[in-house]
Amino acid sequence: MHGNVIAAISTPPGKGGVAVIRMSGSGAIEIARSVFLPLSGKDITDYKPRTQIYGYVIYNEEKIDDGMLTVFPSPHSYTGEDTVEISCHGGILVTRTVLEALFAKGAVPAEAGEFTRRAFINGKLSLSEAEAIGTLLEATSHEQIKLSSSPARAKLCEAIDAIRRDLTDVMSSIWARIDYPDEDLGDFTDAETVQRLEAVKYNLSRLIGTYRTGRAINEGISTVIVGKPNVGKSTLYNLLVGEDAAIVTDIAGTTRDVLERTVPLGRVTLRLTDTAGVRSGEGLDKVEAIGIERSKSRIASAELIIALFDLSREFDESDKELIDEITKAQGYKICLLNKCDLADKNDPPFDASLIPEGVFGETISISADKDNLKTIETLTQMVNGLFTDEKISCGQDAIVSSARQHSSLLRALGFIDTAIDAYRSGLMTDAASSDIEMAIGAISELDGRAVSDSIVNDIFSKFCVGK
Amino acid sequence: MHGNVIAAISTPPGKGGVAVIRMSGSGAIEIARSVFLPLSGKDITDYKPRTQIYGYVIYNEEKIDDGMLTVFPSPHSYTGEDTVEISCHGGILVTRTVLEALFAKGAVPAEAGEFTRRAFINGKLSLSEAEAIGTLLEATSHEQIKLSSSPARAKLCEAIDAIRRDLTDVMSSIWARIDYPDEDLGDFTDAETVQRLEAVKYNLSRLIGTYRTGRAINEGISTVIVGKPNVGKSTLYNLLVGEDAAIVTDIAGTTRDVLERTVPLGRVTLRLTDTAGVRSGEGLDKVEAIGIERSKSRIASAELIIALFDLSREFDESDKELIDEITKAQGYKICLLNKCDLADKNDPPFDASLIPEGVFGETISISADKDNLKTIETLTQMVNGLFTDEKISCGQDAIVSSARQHSSLLRALGFIDTAIDAYRSGLMTDAASSDIEMAIGAISELDGRAVSDSIVNDIFSKFCVGK
Repeated sequence: MHGNVIAAISTPPGKGGVAVIRMSGSGAIEIARSVFLPLSGKDITDYKPRTQIYGYVIYNEEKIDDGMLTVFPSPHSYTGEDTVEISCHGGILVTRTVLEALFAKGAVPAEAGEFTRRAFINGKLSLSEAEAIGTLLEATSHEQIKLSSSPARAKLCEAIDAIRRDLTDVMSSIWARIDYPDEDLGDFTDAETVQRLEAVKYNLSRLIGTYRTGRAINEGISTVIVGKPNVGKSTLYNLLVGEDAAIVTDIAGTTRDVLERTVPLGRVTLRLTDTAGVRSGEGLDKVEAIGIERSKSRIASAELIIALFDLSREFDESDKELIDEITKAQGYKICLLNKCDLADKNDPPFDASLIPEGVFGETISISADKDNLKTIETLTQMVNGLFTDEKISCGQDAIVSSARQHSSLLRALGFIDTAIDAYRSGLMTDAASSDIEMAIGAISELDGRAVSDSIVNDIFSKFCVGK
Repeated sequence: MHGNVIAAISTPPGKGGVAVIRMSGSGAIEIARSVFLPLSGKDITDYKPRTQIYGYVIYNEEKIDDGMLTVFPSPHSYTGEDTVEISCHGGILVTRTVLEALFAKGAVPAEAGEFTRRAFINGKLSLSEAEAIGTLLEATSHEQIKLSSSPARAKLCEAIDAIRRDLTDVMSSIWARIDYPDEDLGDFTDAETVQRLEAVKYNLSRLIGTYRTGRAINEGISTVIVGKPNVGKSTLYNLLVGEDAAIVTDIAGTTRDVLERTVPLGRVTLRLTDTAGVRSGEGLDKVEAIGIERSKSRIASAELIIALFDLSREFDESDKELIDEITKAQGYKICLLNKCDLADKNDPPFDASLIPEGVFGETISISADKDNLKTIETLTQMVNGLFTDEKISCGQDAIVSSARQHSSLLRALGFIDTAIDAYRSGLMTDAASSDIEMAIGAISELDGRAVSDSIVNDIFSKFCVGK
C-alpha cells in the first residue's frame, strides 16, 4: 500500500539511551500519523515542519513507547522525499518494536544505504558526495573527517561541475559549427578549441594529482616495519599505534588473515601490519621460519617499508638478508638506524657503510626508546612529505580520494588527449567530438549524473542499513 | 566554566547512519551556539524551540560535520534543564569528535544515567519511573515493554501518590488533634483513624500483590528443564527458545558461569538454563558426572522445574533418581509425560504410577515432537496461570516490578500494621503517628521523594552513559 515508504533504525545497533528510526517516501507522513499520538492531542501535521513533537508510539493499539517525532516534508529532507524521524528509548527490543509498528502500517525495510541512495536519485547529493559520506562513517582519523566533511564534499562537486561545464561549452561550439558551417559563430578555430581542451586537461590533471594525497589520507599506505629480532620493531610499532590510542582500530581484512592496524600519522593513514623479526642462520624452528617467510612476502607487497637496524650491535648476516629482501621490493624504503645513543659503546661498531647505497630513499638515526617524540616527529614529516602534497588542504581544496573517482578522471583525461591529437593531426571534427562526449560521460559517471546501476549498487551496498 | 553542562553520545556505541549527542545544563545553549553554525546564517536561538536546525559542527575552527541541532529550553526538556541535541553522521570517530567539540567549549562528560538522574532531581520523573525506563532499555519481551511503557509508569506513580496522600491526610488530622485537643476538628475518632489506615493497608496489599506478576514479567522465573538423556529436553528447549527467536537473548550473568536464555512465554519471562540429562548407573565418565551434578544443583535452586519423562520407554532407575532430586527441591514442579503418541507401542509400558503422588503440582501428557503448538500452548497457559494474575494488565494497572519497590512497600505495610496495633491496644497516639511517618518515609523512598544517595546511585549506575 505504501510500497515506496522505507523505514529502518538509523542509529547503531545495540542498546543505548536513544535510538532514531527513519522513514522516507510518499506516504511516510500518513504512516507516522497512524502510529504516533502527540501528547497535545493535536495532529502531527498541525505542527510546523521540523519541530520535535512529544508523544506516544502505538502498536497493536497499545502505547509501547514515548518519544519525539519530527516531520521533514519533501523536498527539505535528507532524501528529498517526505521523511519522518522518531526518536525513542534506545532498548534493543523497544526500538525494533517501534520499527515493526511502522512495518505494520505499510512501510518496508530499507536496504543498506537506501536513504542516501534516494537522496542521490532525487538530486540532493552527487555520487562523489555519497561516497564521501560513506568515508565519513568509516573515518578513523581527523584528517579523513576533514576530507569527507560537508565543505570538502562541496569543493569536489564544484571542481567536477566546472570541468563538465567547460567540456559541454566546447561541445556546443563544435556542434554549432557542424550544423551551421557557413555562419559566423564567433572565433572558435580548431587551434582555439585545442587551447580550450588543453585548459580542461590542465584542470583535470591537477584534480587527478590530488589523488596521491587523498588516497594517503583516505585509503592509507600499506606499511611494514622490518628488522632482525630485538632491533626495536615493537618499540616503534607501539609508538606509532599508541600515538593517539583512541582512534587506533583493529580492522580484520576481508581477504587477509592477519590483523591490520590503522594508524594516523600526521595527515596520512598507515595500514600497519606486524611482522616477525627476520633472521638468518641455523636453529630456526618451523613456526619462526613461517613467520619470516610472511615478513618477506609483506616486504614485497608494502608501499612503505620501514627498516630498522641496531647501531648497538654489529652488522650481521640477518641484516644482510633483510637488505637483500628489501632491495627486491618495490615500495618506498626508509632506513632507521636505531639506538644511536648506544652506537659508540659498541666494539666492533655497526658499520653503516655495509648498507649498499641506493637501497633506501631516506636514512636517519633515531633512538626510538629514548626520544619518542623526535622519532615520531621525524617519521611523520618524512612520510607525509613522501605521500602527500602539503599545499593541498582538506576542506579548502577539491581532493579526489577514491579509486573509482580517480579511474573516471583518468579515463576522461585519456579521451581529451585523444581529442587533442585528433584536432592536431587534422582529423575530422566528428572523431574528436565523440572523444569529448566520452570524456563528459566519464565525468558524469564520477558524480553519478550518468552511471550504471552496478556502480551505484556497489557504492551503496557498503553503507549500513538506516543511512 | 560550564561545570554543570553534561554531554554524551546518547545512541548506542558503534557505527550507524545517525548518532545523537545530548547536552544538558544551564549554559548548554551557549556552548551549542559556539560549536554549531546554522546553514541559514541565523543564530540557533532565532529558531523556535524544538525545531531541528540544519548546519555545521565546528571544532578547532573547522567544519567537521553537518547535522541537525535542536534546542529544548528549560523546563520543557527530558532533564528539565536547557537541553541540546545534535544529530550527526554516525561514524565512530566523527561522533566522538563532535562530542569533543562540546568538551572543548566547557561541557563535561555525563556519567551513566546522569540525564535521567537530573530529570529525577528536577522532578520530571519519579524514581519508580526512572527504574521503569531502565527496564524498558533492557526489555527482551513485549510484555516487559508494556510493563515499562509511559502509561504503565504513570499508573504506578498515581497509585503510590494516592497511598502517600491518604497517609498524609491521616497524619494531619492526628497532629491537629494533638495540637488542639479541645477543639472540635470533625469526627476522626481513634476507631475512624484505624478504619482509614485499614483502607490504606488494603490498597498497599493489593499493590504488593502485583509484584508476583510484575516480577514474573520483568525479572523472570529461573527455570530448568530436566529429564534423563534422550527424553526430549532439547526438543522442548528449542521449542521454547525458538518460539520467537528474534527476541531471545543470551545473557551472560554477572555471577553465573553459564549462559542463561531469556525466553518470553506468554507474558512471563523464563530464565532458562540448559541442563545435562540426569542418568544413574555405571559407566559415567567424569565429564558427564560433573554435568549431572550441575543439573542437580540447578534443580535445587530453580523456581520452576519442568521434568520430562519418556512414555515410549520403561520407567527406570534414572527416572527414579531424577524424582528423588526433584522431591528435595523447593521450586514449582511440572511433570511432562512426553512421546504420548508412542506410549502404547511400548512393552513393557511406562508405568506412570511409579511417579509418587504429590511430587508434581501438575502433570500433562504431550508430544513435544509431533504437536509443537499444543505443547507450547499448554505450557504457556500453565506457567502464566502459576506465576501471574491474569486480571492484572500491563499498561492498565499499577504494577510493582522491582525488588526495591516491593521491599519499600512491605516496610510501609509493616509500619501501618504496627500503627493499627498501637491504636487498637490503646497506646499513645505519638507512637502510632511515628509509625505512620515511617510508612510515609518508606513510600517516599519508593518514588524517590526522600531517598538515600546510595539507592539513587545504585539505580542510575545501571543506566548507560547518554541516558
